Amino acid sequence: MTLPTIIKVHVPESHNDFLERLRRLPPLFTCTIASTETALIPGVSAAGAGPELIPYTAAADVEALVYGQALCLEKIPENPVGPPSPVIITMAALRELEAPFFVVDAGNAVTPKVPMLTAGRQPGREITAPEAVAEVEELFLQGIIIGQQLADNHHSLILGESVPGGTTTAMAVMEALGIAALGKISGSMPGNNQNLKQDLVCRALREKDLQRGFALKNPLSAIRLLGDPMQAVQAGIAMSASRKIPVLLAGGTQMIAVAALIGALLEQPAAINAITRRGSQKLINCALKAQLENVAIATTAWVSEDESADLRSLMRQLPQALPLYAAGLDFSTSRHQNLKLYEEGYVKEGVGAGALALCAMLYHDLDNLKFLPRIEKIYEEIYLAG
Amino acid sequence: MTLPTIIKVHVPESHNDFLERLRRLPPLFTCTIASTETALIPGVSAAGAGPELIPYTAAADVEALVYGQALCLEKIPENPVGPPSPVIITMAALRELEAPFFVVDAGNAVTPKVPMLTAGRQPGREITAPEAVAEVEELFLQGIIIGQQLADNHHSLILGESVPGGTTTAMAVMEALGIAALGKISGSMPGNNQNLKQDLVCRALREKDLQRGFALKNPLSAIRLLGDPMQAVQAGIAMSASRKIPVLLAGGTQMIAVAALIGALLEQPAAINAITRRGSQKLINCALKAQLENVAIATTAWVSEDESADLRSLMRQLPQALPLYAAGLDFSTSRHQNLKLYEEGYVKEGVGAGALALCAMLYHDLDNLKFLPRIEKIYEEIYLAG
Repeated sequence: MTLPTIIKVHVPESHNDFLERLRRLPPLFTCTIASTETALIPGVSAAGAGPELIPYTAAADVEALVYGQALCLEKIPENPVGPPSPVIITMAALRELEAPFFVVDAGNAVTPKVPMLTAGRQPGREITAPEAVAEVEELFLQGIIIGQQLADNHHSLILGESVPGGTTTAMAVMEALGIAALGKISGSMPGNNQNLKQDLVCRALREKDLQRGFALKNPLSAIRLLGDPMQAVQAGIAMSASRKIPVLLAGGTQMIAVAALIGALLEQPAAINAITRRGSQKLINCALKAQLENVAIATTAWVSEDESADLRSLMRQLPQALPLYAAGLDFSTSRHQNLKLYEEGYVKEGVGAGALALCAMLYHDLDNLKFLPRIEKIYEEIYLAG
Repeated sequence: MTLPTIIKVHVPESHNDFLERLRRLPPLFTCTIASTETALIPGVSAAGAGPELIPYTAAADVEALVYGQALCLEKIPENPVGPPSPVIITMAALRELEAPFFVVDAGNAVTPKVPMLTAGRQPGREITAPEAVAEVEELFLQGIIIGQQLADNHHSLILGESVPGGTTTAMAVMEALGIAALGKISGSMPGNNQNLKQDLVCRALREKDLQRGFALKNPLSAIRLLGDPMQAVQAGIAMSASRKIPVLLAGGTQMIAVAALIGALLEQPAAINAITRRGSQKLINCALKAQLENVAIATTAWVSEDESADLRSLMRQLPQALPLYAAGLDFSTSRHQNLKLYEEGYVKEGVGAGALALCAMLYHDLDNLKFLPRIEKIYEEIYLAG
């Protein structure tokens, strides 16, 4: 079956013209990186060639964006079975789009040798720790400021991430916000290790004596207790930037969790108005003026059509209706075995790959067959260069 | 005497159309902040209301840009005699221009509660220390990356700074690069305390057994031995961004030192080609393609016409001819005594005030009389608000 170039997975009527509005402005990409110790629990993440390399994954991904290769790893991050990080898709799309980008630091165990917009400086803890994310309100406020700064830049905004372990924190946060997410998330391995992740989320909820939906009255508490630092920052950026420009949340499961957080926050303005640190009021007012018709989610077909997940169900449960698009990427005809392995589910999404591929194809009228060789070229530059 | 709105202090023919080219693109402002322990030597800096507040000055300045007031100080930085930081001019201009901005962190003793593009994380030492700036090559490389990222943003770039003690490090670096700077720099007090600063620079040179011009063969060694972290970062940003867009170095003495560094680096490509850390070669190639016709300096009339300094002499000594413009700011008719004190030399420049005032007046066809009330309004919002 040939996939359409852009799969309209879930598009509420309110957003019929979103892609058209997105295309009116040149794209600007941000990649928000963060660590969560949740990723170090065996079986949660396949983001590094071996478990000891997981903490380097996010740093290596953004170094690759800047330098064409990682500095803290030999090449770029890899799945243990061989396929390379989806950053190769991101790199191909950024080259095609000639798009500027910034890295946003939400709190990382390994500091990459690249400039980062600092939103936070502390890695997240395990979701079973008493506090998974410290200073979650400050992360949210810093995100709002970044969104303000980027919104004046005359671009459409594509908000990606690299957070190993991030689909597990996404599952936990969605449950906290009342979305039935167990068994429905995607992830960086065939089958997504749903049982292990589900057991972990249920254990964290149980040990903290929390039920599904407990955070609806105070949505940021979902992140504080069960999330990762990226989620709070990304929500802040998206909310304030959406007042002025189209914002594409770039990812699958992880961005549905961010969208759930945004929706829940907008339904509980009292909860964020309760943030009282000096100077916060203007920022909060700004976030509360978020324009959801300017927000959408985009991922890859490997995620949206993942039969071990159920993205459509997650989208239907969002507090506010938002669209989910997917780039019809298909590597089955690739000349490289490690890229063909994407078709077996070893790598599916990350570093904004799906949304950027979608933009590259949308802005430059490419289909998968035309775009794939550009991804292969990046792969060859990294792995086959003398 | 009434000042012209824009004073063309020094304009080589190569740059006759610079302001016109600048105006073709909307402005984007960056403020690079750094600490140097040189500022803590008594008499060097009047950047804080008292010496113990000097380390907070840069952080407070950029917090004011984001929040409309500082968080780490009560209001905003002040000269001990009363006049407020020039950040009020910057704030008025940014509001007028509706310009986006980013803060760049080159290494600071106090971390402001604002997102910063990280170029460095270590404050500078005293210029008499064995190494005034650590990892100067890395600072330069990170600056180059930031310049690349900003150059794709479809803006003209205005590069400001807040570095207490920065005119002393500027004097030292100019001497290191063969420019007779003793007694010619401006600074944040009447008369500029030339003797004290000059004695300090001469002592640093003597103790390290260095002569004027010692760094011409290896320009970054001027920063390593006698400079501050901002200088290396700013040169990197300006060089790589100037390949594509007009770049205005926003400051007086301090930016002439940065311009001297840029000129010296372009005359000694071998020196920067000697940087061999992994991934650096592409960045260096990018810096070496700097287009000087895209670079100029802009400051205030308080600096350009400062009779205790000699900016024209410094400009004539630059290795490559660059223009110096000044915004014809005049606070003598202000309704606030603390602003009138600017006319007595207590505050003259900083946080890109001169260049941003110049842009506000240039882009929006204002003169000093029309612009001053907008600055007074900012002052009143900070000091007279209930």
